[in-house]
Amino acid sequence: MAKYRIGVDLGGTSIKVGIFSGNGELLGKKNSATDPFCRSWREVVADMAGLIEGLFRENGAVEADCHSIGVGTPGLIDSRKGTVVYASNFNWERVPILEELKRRFDLPMALANDADCAVLGETVAGAAKGAKNKNVVMFTLGTGVGGGVVLDGRLSGGGPGKMELGHTIIVAGGEPCRCGILGCLEAYASATALIRDASRAAEDDRDSKMWELCGGELSNMNGRIPFDAMRAGDKTAKRVVENYIGYLGVGVANAINIWRPDIILLGGGIANEGDGLILPLTERVRANVFAGDRGCLPIIKRATMGNDAGLYGAAALNV
Amino acid sequence: MAKYRIGVDLGGTSIKVGIFSGNGELLGKKNSATDPFCRSWREVVADMAGLIEGLFRENGAVEADCHSIGVGTPGLIDSRKGTVVYASNFNWERVPILEELKRRFDLPMALANDADCAVLGETVAGAAKGAKNKNVVMFTLGTGVGGGVVLDGRLSGGGPGKMELGHTIIVAGGEPCRCGILGCLEAYASATALIRDASRAAEDDRDSKMWELCGGELSNMNGRIPFDAMRAGDKTAKRVVENYIGYLGVGVANAINIWRPDIILLGGGIANEGDGLILPLTERVRANVFAGDRGCLPIIKRATMGNDAGLYGAAALNV
Repeated sequence: MAKYRIGVDLGGTSIKVGIFSGNGELLGKKNSATDPFCRSWREVVADMAGLIEGLFRENGAVEADCHSIGVGTPGLIDSRKGTVVYASNFNWERVPILEELKRRFDLPMALANDADCAVLGETVAGAAKGAKNKNVVMFTLGTGVGGGVVLDGRLSGGGPGKMELGHTIIVAGGEPCRCGILGCLEAYASATALIRDASRAAEDDRDSKMWELCGGELSNMNGRIPFDAMRAGDKTAKRVVENYIGYLGVGVANAINIWRPDIILLGGGIANEGDGLILPLTERVRANVFAGDRGCLPIIKRATMGNDAGLYGAAALNV
Repeated sequence: MAKYRIGVDLGGTSIKVGIFSGNGELLGKKNSATDPFCRSWREVVADMAGLIEGLFRENGAVEADCHSIGVGTPGLIDSRKGTVVYASNFNWERVPILEELKRRFDLPMALANDADCAVLGETVAGAAKGAKNKNVVMFTLGTGVGGGVVLDGRLSGGGPGKMELGHTIIVAGGEPCRCGILGCLEAYASATALIRDASRAAEDDRDSKMWELCGGELSNMNGRIPFDAMRAGDKTAKRVVENYIGYLGVGVANAINIWRPDIILLGGGIANEGDGLILPLTERVRANVFAGDRGCLPIIKRATMGNDAGLYGAAALNV
């Protein structure tokens, strides 16, 4: 019998743990609160271990029945050392998370960034399950822009850390990014960037439907309003959305010119716009792909797994 | 005895073939003219096969003594199919180069882009030979901007084609690139781009040393003149060079934020500026690296193998 795999998705709010069958079926999951600011990292890891033991018990399993434990966490990680180098949303620096977990379990383990786990999860069990060559690039369009790359079914990376696709520069000297760099993809293609641009445009044009939809209060602006206003025929909103899609198209085309994936996945809140985003984006991407139609344009589609992708991906990490 | 490896470096001017010992020592090489416009691709491949047979004879070897044949060629290639999809400088489209070569040799073969072969060659035998994790990114700063990525000692890529690092966009909507896209790294960091910017600046400021160094004739401008003029104290040239290094720094930082390599290599004519380029570039890169000093800045250095890198890399391709 193929052995169980454990996946851990460590987030700012909760620690989620899943137990999977050898062929990747989720058999059970558990979670508890993370509270990273009230507690030491050792306490967080102890809870993680407790959840894993609980899942073993509930599934009549012992440690020896388990193939591996994969952990996904936010921040800059060193997968070779199994260390969280820096995670601003936990206030963690140089946390040897796998070393600590190995005091509880004598099992092969792997650590990866949570956005990387999400793209791997979508590749093994979600929207990119059928990708011909299992070459997949995913962009998560939320507060920031996350991303990850799977080549030949395995997470692709280089040295310590993860691929910071959101922090590649697409406008040298452009908009300030919250990371401190100017002109990052994240500063143009995140929900935060869209809200910034929509707010600027609504302030300049108070006849815009966007102004009405946020009740004349820019703090109510969100990433859906410009799309909703555009669909209602608002020209200012159309300009904001087209501009946003143009920049996102640059980031997507750059990924294509680097990796030539089979599938580009879009996750995060903005991806909920579906075809209203994806159809014009595909056109914009086409204009920026090297060697044009000779270059084989990948399919662009929505990620489908949502919050579970990270758990599936963590369990599927190579150990 | 480890078997011989054959490397082929197919260029617009010449076909170069080398025979290597099992531990990567170059034992002999041969070349002949390519003449891709006067001849069919079959004739070019026949010459290639003839050169390989000549090297076998001269080294007292037979086909069975050989481990593999690796071929590097310019253009968009499909390494899975062993096909040159499109090479503008040969006017080749869909050329099944390995299929043709297999009619002559019953050996494992691999096809890769020549810039990819160069970075692999530098990694196995050149400037990046000692890279700790064998994670290396190379940029070739010539007429265009080439590039390649080696992770864990192997060429990294995705789907068909190569990584077009020179055709990732660093200024959305910026300078037109000869590939048709606006704002590519190549449109800012190639020798061609430097010459364009130096010519514009010299024309605007005829008191500039650059104007003098090109004899008042902008067609004499080259990539060395702005550096030479800067060293002579010319402020306009200094501005041109700093601007160039700023954009190159964006491209290099993007590669670091993606791959976190141990070493960044610079090849091509502009790399001959050595420390005059590399020291200020390192400073500019530092400002654009995600997570700053926590992110481990790689060493930036010159490629050292020149024209031979492609031959060494082709022979080292995984088959």
